[in-house]
Amino acid sequence: MLRIITQRADAEAELRRICDRTQDEQVVHKEATVREVLQTVKRQGDRALLHYTAEFDQKTLKVEELRVSGSELDAAYQQVNKDLLDAIQLACRQIEAFHRQRVPKSWVQFGTDDIVLGKRYTPVDRAGIYIPGGRAAYPSTVLMNAIPAKVAGVPRIAMVTPPGSEKGINPAVLVAAQEAGIQEIYRVGGAQAIAALAYGTETIPKVDVITGPGNIYVTLAKKLVYGTVGIDSLAGPSEVLIIADSGANPIHVATDMLAQAEHDPLAAAILLTPDSALARKVAAEVERQLVNHPRRLLTEKAIAHYGLVVVVSSLAEAAELSNQFAPEHLELEITEPWDLVNQIRHAGAIFLGYSTPEAVGDYLAGPNHTLPTSGAARYASALGVETFLKHSSLIQYSPTALNKMGNAIITLAETEGLNSHADSVRLRIENRTDDA
Amino acid sequence: MLRIITQRADAEAELRRICDRTQDEQVVHKEATVREVLQTVKRQGDRALLHYTAEFDQKTLKVEELRVSGSELDAAYQQVNKDLLDAIQLACRQIEAFHRQRVPKSWVQFGTDDIVLGKRYTPVDRAGIYIPGGRAAYPSTVLMNAIPAKVAGVPRIAMVTPPGSEKGINPAVLVAAQEAGIQEIYRVGGAQAIAALAYGTETIPKVDVITGPGNIYVTLAKKLVYGTVGIDSLAGPSEVLIIADSGANPIHVATDMLAQAEHDPLAAAILLTPDSALARKVAAEVERQLVNHPRRLLTEKAIAHYGLVVVVSSLAEAAELSNQFAPEHLELEITEPWDLVNQIRHAGAIFLGYSTPEAVGDYLAGPNHTLPTSGAARYASALGVETFLKHSSLIQYSPTALNKMGNAIITLAETEGLNSHADSVRLRIENRTDDA
Repeated sequence: MLRIITQRADAEAELRRICDRTQDEQVVHKEATVREVLQTVKRQGDRALLHYTAEFDQKTLKVEELRVSGSELDAAYQQVNKDLLDAIQLACRQIEAFHRQRVPKSWVQFGTDDIVLGKRYTPVDRAGIYIPGGRAAYPSTVLMNAIPAKVAGVPRIAMVTPPGSEKGINPAVLVAAQEAGIQEIYRVGGAQAIAALAYGTETIPKVDVITGPGNIYVTLAKKLVYGTVGIDSLAGPSEVLIIADSGANPIHVATDMLAQAEHDPLAAAILLTPDSALARKVAAEVERQLVNHPRRLLTEKAIAHYGLVVVVSSLAEAAELSNQFAPEHLELEITEPWDLVNQIRHAGAIFLGYSTPEAVGDYLAGPNHTLPTSGAARYASALGVETFLKHSSLIQYSPTALNKMGNAIITLAETEGLNSHADSVRLRIENRTDDA
Repeated sequence: MLRIITQRADAEAELRRICDRTQDEQVVHKEATVREVLQTVKRQGDRALLHYTAEFDQKTLKVEELRVSGSELDAAYQQVNKDLLDAIQLACRQIEAFHRQRVPKSWVQFGTDDIVLGKRYTPVDRAGIYIPGGRAAYPSTVLMNAIPAKVAGVPRIAMVTPPGSEKGINPAVLVAAQEAGIQEIYRVGGAQAIAALAYGTETIPKVDVITGPGNIYVTLAKKLVYGTVGIDSLAGPSEVLIIADSGANPIHVATDMLAQAEHDPLAAAILLTPDSALARKVAAEVERQLVNHPRRLLTEKAIAHYGLVVVVSSLAEAAELSNQFAPEHLELEITEPWDLVNQIRHAGAIFLGYSTPEAVGDYLAGPNHTLPTSGAARYASALGVETFLKHSSLIQYSPTALNKMGNAIITLAETEGLNSHADSVRLRIENRTDDA
């Protein structure tokens, strides 16, 4: 069922098809629905949130139930065991330590003639984090979104998440949120939650940046509100591309492919290897592990449609194909992974060597697991502290500096037909001459 | 005509109205047109470009005329005088010098148990720059977009710009493009140009990131193709907010306001001052300068609709109002501008002191003049080298490290119901035990 391809042209065509796997969706129709939800929440506030929660989540809430209460937050700690709490706290520490590296800092530079130039970094006032419900209610997602905001120094971080089934919101998610420093949690999901964060309602204050993954409605809503607020990215289904040599263990490679496929029927798992024996062993092992897989149906679907093994002529060819695909996750299960890294131009995260399965990075190595998908690694990067920071350019000219540069500015302004631009310099220079 | 307001509540309401000045546009209808243009160019390539150029620009082109020829590029140098060329070259040097500061660099960090973590920065393969035609054909825009891409190390930078009237493309724009390192220039504008850059045509190769300002059709097209390619931002009409004290020269302040207003009938120019005498003098001077202004009609319109003077009780209050507005350009024409900077949370660029008119930064101080508008400074920053860079996270775990962290990863994976994630670690740890 996991196809093995040996021709380069076929491989390129298949990789293109897999990369474009979300392009075919009928988004225009869904966009009309999302647009209506956004407009209604903008106009009606909380009332619209309750209406859509009843309609889409089959949950009747009162206004005062929108915000998760302190007692519910406390209770969540009773529902997670010590091992899990320890693991969440370990992940918190490691993610925070990594994100504290190389955070952009404000600077000024003093030049000739008392010119001062610089950049002043400040965090956004408020961040809003979307955490999906249902199958994808992951505490790790909470940490990966909230900790960069906390490191950036964002004073208020709000989280929204669907109300959940009768049991309510996953307690591990509520614990992760508190460990990561989130104080406000609201029981609302879908496009209506994105609208609440973008425009504000009586209960939920407007934020400046919205991050976090979601289904197609959430993603469309984020795209539509982009410009009113900042967003992290438009997340698509997850994907891994593995480059493996004959030193790789086929059982490990197969498990790593399934670890991607088990996320979503649209997830993609690709192996590029020069070793045709490894290719066959991995394909067989994937079949074997699928038989008793707890998420067999969806995992099988992903493997059938978006699973692929390509036998390549060399590791260099594998790097070229990988660059064309620009994978979200790239595993280099090869003897000398650092040699190949220099040939990789586009990848969200690179996992080096035989003992670094993607799960290491998904949970607690430190780097963010929110990564560009569907070829977006060609131009985008992981979510990070920068997502919650912005800077102001700083410029100070002295009269002397303005005098020296004035003529060039006036020439450029006049070329552009911007008379007052030229005057704003000219009048100051004339003053200067008067003073002298 | 330039209104003076003294009540805080009125000021807040007016600033909100000015900040939201582009929200009312009937974008949904225009979006349908833009969507059609994008789809047609995606399907028909060059043929669609020629069709739309004939329809929207009233210009009949042959396919081979889409790309600006080498002889045309050479000829442009004959059409600009030496002063202008010198000014362009000076601006190039200064912009490049500023953008070379603090460019993110790749790094790795070696931890305990042979854990290696890091980030590897790489430029995008191709950048596409949109340069408007007509009233807004500015050589400075070319420099501000192309130089950051060049500093980022982007191998190919393509520029698109409308074909222009009978005289063709502005020669100063063609010279600036060459000085900034652009080699490919295409004679196409509007949404069709954005489509060509996003999807590629027979003549114009697909790019990875599109930057540059444009009219509402260009901006909508950029929003729609975001996700297929990266974009810089959704630029709105320009704005300046000036905080001035009694030491400011009213003639200079008035000229700076007009320098913003002369861009666009939607441009905004706001003065906040504790000095009511200065407020009146500035308002009178604006009227005086408008009489003979070369762009009187549009400038007058901007001042009438989006010009505003607020008499504030203190500079601290001015800073608060400025933070609510989050201006693209902020001028601090006050005695101690560095004292007030610390109270500013949101501003695209800050111009400090009496002798730093915004024009200094528009042309050649060095920092980018492409800045967040309409309140986007709450979450966004100037265009920069980062716009054209992205990074891959790097993660390497040793068998020992995986052994130590393994249980925590397995606990988290099992909590999330991701069995193969847990297995990808478990099977490797078991192997390790076997080896030992």
